[in-house]
Formats: sequence, structure tokens, C-alpha cells
Amino acid sequence: MRLIRFEQGGASRLAVLDPTGTKAMPVSSLGKGFEADDWLEFIRHATPEQIKLLQAFASSDDSSSEGLLLEQLHLLAPVERPIHDILCVGVNYRAHYEECAAAVHMEEPEAAVYFSKRCSRMTGPEESVESHAGLDLALDYEVELAVVLGKGGRDIAPQDVENHIFGYSVFNDISARTLQHSHMQWYRGKSLDGFCAMGPWIVTRDELPMPLNLNVESRLNGEVRQHSNTRAFIRDIPKLISELSQGITLEAGDIIISGTPAGVGMGFDPPRYMKPGDVIECEVEGIGVLRNRIRD
Amino acid sequence: MRLIRFEQGGASRLAVLDPTGTKAMPVSSLGKGFEADDWLEFIRHATPEQIKLLQAFASSDDSSSEGLLLEQLHLLAPVERPIHDILCVGVNYRAHYEECAAAVHMEEPEAAVYFSKRCSRMTGPEESVESHAGLDLALDYEVELAVVLGKGGRDIAPQDVENHIFGYSVFNDISARTLQHSHMQWYRGKSLDGFCAMGPWIVTRDELPMPLNLNVESRLNGEVRQHSNTRAFIRDIPKLISELSQGITLEAGDIIISGTPAGVGMGFDPPRYMKPGDVIECEVEGIGVLRNRIRD
Repeated sequence: MRLIRFEQGGASRLAVLDPTGTKAMPVSSLGKGFEADDWLEFIRHATPEQIKLLQAFASSDDSSSEGLLLEQLHLLAPVERPIHDILCVGVNYRAHYEECAAAVHMEEPEAAVYFSKRCSRMTGPEESVESHAGLDLALDYEVELAVVLGKGGRDIAPQDVENHIFGYSVFNDISARTLQHSHMQWYRGKSLDGFCAMGPWIVTRDELPMPLNLNVESRLNGEVRQHSNTRAFIRDIPKLISELSQGITLEAGDIIISGTPAGVGMGFDPPRYMKPGDVIECEVEGIGVLRNRIRD
Repeated sequence: MRLIRFEQGGASRLAVLDPTGTKAMPVSSLGKGFEADDWLEFIRHATPEQIKLLQAFASSDDSSSEGLLLEQLHLLAPVERPIHDILCVGVNYRAHYEECAAAVHMEEPEAAVYFSKRCSRMTGPEESVESHAGLDLALDYEVELAVVLGKGGRDIAPQDVENHIFGYSVFNDISARTLQHSHMQWYRGKSLDGFCAMGPWIVTRDELPMPLNLNVESRLNGEVRQHSNTRAFIRDIPKLISELSQGITLEAGDIIISGTPAGVGMGFDPPRYMKPGDVIECEVEGIGVLRNRIRD
């Protein structure tokens, strides 16, 4: 099931895509629990019955004939203001570690690298990203698989993690490399306004069973920059989320991004960063393409 | 003006302390804008008129006679669930950098070190802190001056920062040192449940004019561990908040902690960490004492 959020007459509306992926069926008619204007509220409070109702609605052929044409909609980020900063995993593909180590001083981490990105407002698909060129010219992309939790918890065992997942999306962990590395901790260079881009929608977990086997790719102005597969994760999603939950209560609505493959701009010699006018596309197999233009 | 939050009959209530600091005057009688059960809502939406009304109430001798005795109240953290992870500054006192460098590999940062602490729920004064001994035995304290913003903004000039500050509090940036250093980025070791402690109240900015000249001290079981003064900051509050706001929109309610002086447990040889049963007191001159017991 693909859950979209779109703009209509200045307001935001929620819809599911029909089985063909061409029509969007607004969910507000489904009644209580479906009148929200952001998927976050649904994710945090949905009952299993509501999810089943939504699934039946999404798979019904009758409704699809009444849907809106997806290609005519202006899509918004499925979640606009996350409940917490984004939980991030650094260096989760070996080839990406090797390119980082060649570009900046970095010792090989023996444990997973966890950090966070501040997010006051998610950048949606179809939305442009400020380059912040006055602060840093080393503007980089990082395609990542995002996991959205549907159930919170603490000390979650790896084999239970899938039950806590609501769905997945595509994330661009946009980074200002000079700021990221000049402050020792990565936080500032990862947290500039607009640096969290997610979309084009959320795919519920039933469509992407574990173990995940999804191609992950980014393209800058059409040129493939990153290409790998989630099988190449150093640590898989159950292991990462289980470890993060040791001593930390995770919550429904939390967003965890799982690391990026080799091929970031920083990894080239000389580096090949993004600049205003560029179009960056991030794609995860089974989910879709997140496309953003860089602006001044 | 000292703003407290306390528990009464299972609910949380807001009050101001009277000029003597012995009586608490609940603010709910002041009408619209004062019925919240957490200062965050007031801070985010208060008008200058409401702040003036509160100040008049706090300084009125008449009201004080009707107040509740502070010593009989069970104080709660003034803000229970911050709008964002806590914005943190590492290594902002030179002597603390030197003790860190002696304890763990750390190059001297040329720029400020910014990182964040996840905070789903603030630990209040009078509340105990879980030791997480099963995860990490290197449980450490860090007394810090916390700044609470009253007005958001981006690209704030240093000379304008004070206008964006609502008030100050005392913060204990509790840290699990093994986790902090084994994951390269500090996030996980700084973000375990309960690791954000703030209180005993918020002092509004008018009581602590710039430049700040405040003693900062921590005591473990009565023994002074850290003692310095905010004059010893490597970078002062206006400079830090101005830099953080370059390219990042800060919001009313954001909490920024400003670094800790030398004397943390990690800095001793051998280290002297906290364990269950210990009582850690953090004090900032002009604000008060934040006291927490460590539990299993």
C-alpha cells in the first residue's frame, strides 16, 4: 500500500494509490482516524482495523475509477514535521566507508555510527532544496532507505523489529560536508533547513518483506552516482533498530535512515558536489523516486 | 522571575515563585494562556503583555501570602517534552577539553562542537535517573547552563541573540561514556532514557543580564567535582546561538546547552563514574540546584 499526501486548494490531503499506481483515492471519506492532514497522526494512532480498512480500500477496483490521477497531483512529504530528529546510521555500506576514509580522516568504526538530523519541516518530493551556498559549497546527496516506526518500544529484539515497522520511504540525507567535518560531530552539517527530504510516499511494510533485497540508487542530472542493494548493509535493519532501542524508548512515528552507498560527491577526486539548478533523484526499488531540484 | 512546574493530585501545575523564593503562586487564575500544564506552551505562544502580567503577579506582595510553600511541593521539569532534540555544545571550557583529550583520543576542535541529545521526556528535579548499568558502567555527569529560546529565527546576529532568549535553567547532560565513544558520533551515549535532566525551574532572562558571569558547579555525594564560571566559555552564548542559527531555523521552545567545565568522572585517572545510590547536584549561580539520585 502506497500512502501519499498531496496539496489541494492550499490544504494537504491524504490518499492511497490504487493497485495500478496511477490513481490516488483520498481517504477522508473513510471516517474517524482518516481526517488528518498528515500521515504522522495516522501512524501514531492507527488500529489494526483501520489499517485493514485502508488496505481493502486501496485494493478495491471500484474505488479506483473514482480516484484522482496521480500525475496531476502536487505531492507533499508524507510526514511534514517528525516527532523527533531523524535517527541516522552512518557508514552502513563498506564501499561508502572506504570512500569516506579516502576523503577525510576517519578510523574504521567497530560499532555502528549513530547520529541525528534536526528536522523542523521535511522537504517533499517536487520541492526544491536551498543550496546554502553562502555557508558551504560542498553540498552532497545521500540516498537512503527510511524506516517509519508504527509501534514504539525499548529493548526490542532483532526478531521483533519488523512488527514495530509501519513502512518505508526514500530519504535524501543532504549534507554540507565542510560544516559536517569542521565541527567534529556531524550534527550541524546534516541539519541545515531543507536537508531532510523524504518521499514520494510511504510503502507499508507488508509490501517489502524481510530480508530486504532492494536496489538503492541516486542520479545527479540523470547520471548514476550511487548504486547498491540493501543486501550490502553492514548491519541490517533488525540489528540497527534493535541496538538503537537498547536503553532508548523508540516511538511510533520515529524515522530511522539506514545509511548510504558509495558514490557520494565527497567520494570523487576532485569532489563532485551539487549546485543550484541540479536535479538529484534518489530511488529505492519497490518504493519509488524522490526528485528534488537544488536552488540558490 | 522563577517559573516552576509541580505535581498536585496527579496533575501538573504551573506557578511563579514569589520574591522571597519560598512561596509558589499558581498561575492558572491569570486566565487565557496560563491554563497550560507545561511551560513549553506558554514559552511558544506568550505575548509581551502576558509576560508583563506574570511579572507583576510574581512581584506582588499580596499574592505571596496566598502562595503554596515551595518546600512542600513536588517539582517537575519545567518542560516535559521538548519540541526538538536538545541542541548541545561540546568542549566549551578549555580545561574540559584538556581532560577529554587525556582520557580519549580527541583532536582539538578549531570550531565549536555541536551535537544533539534525544529527549522524549525530561527528567525533573527530585526524580531519579536510571543507571543503565547493563549497557554501560561509565555513567557520567555534566553540569551545564541551559538556554530556552522564546523567539525563533534564522541567521540571528550575535547582538540580537539575547532578544531571542526566554530564560535559563540548569541541565545535567548525563552521558554513557563507553557508548558515547564506541559509536564515533556521541549521539547514542548521550540519548539514553532519562539522560536529559533540567530544573529546578526556569529563570527569565531579565534576571541574568549579558555578559553572563555565573558560577557553574557539580557535586557528587556532596563532593565538588566541577567548578567554573560562564566567563570561561570558549565561545559565549550570543556567538554559539548565532552560529547555530546560520542556515538552521531555531524555534521558540528550543533548548540549547552550553558545555560543561572540567571535572567530569571521565577526567579522573582512574575515572570516577556515578553508580546507583549516588546523588548528583548541578548548580548554576542565580538559578538554583538540580538534584538527582541515580537508581538501578
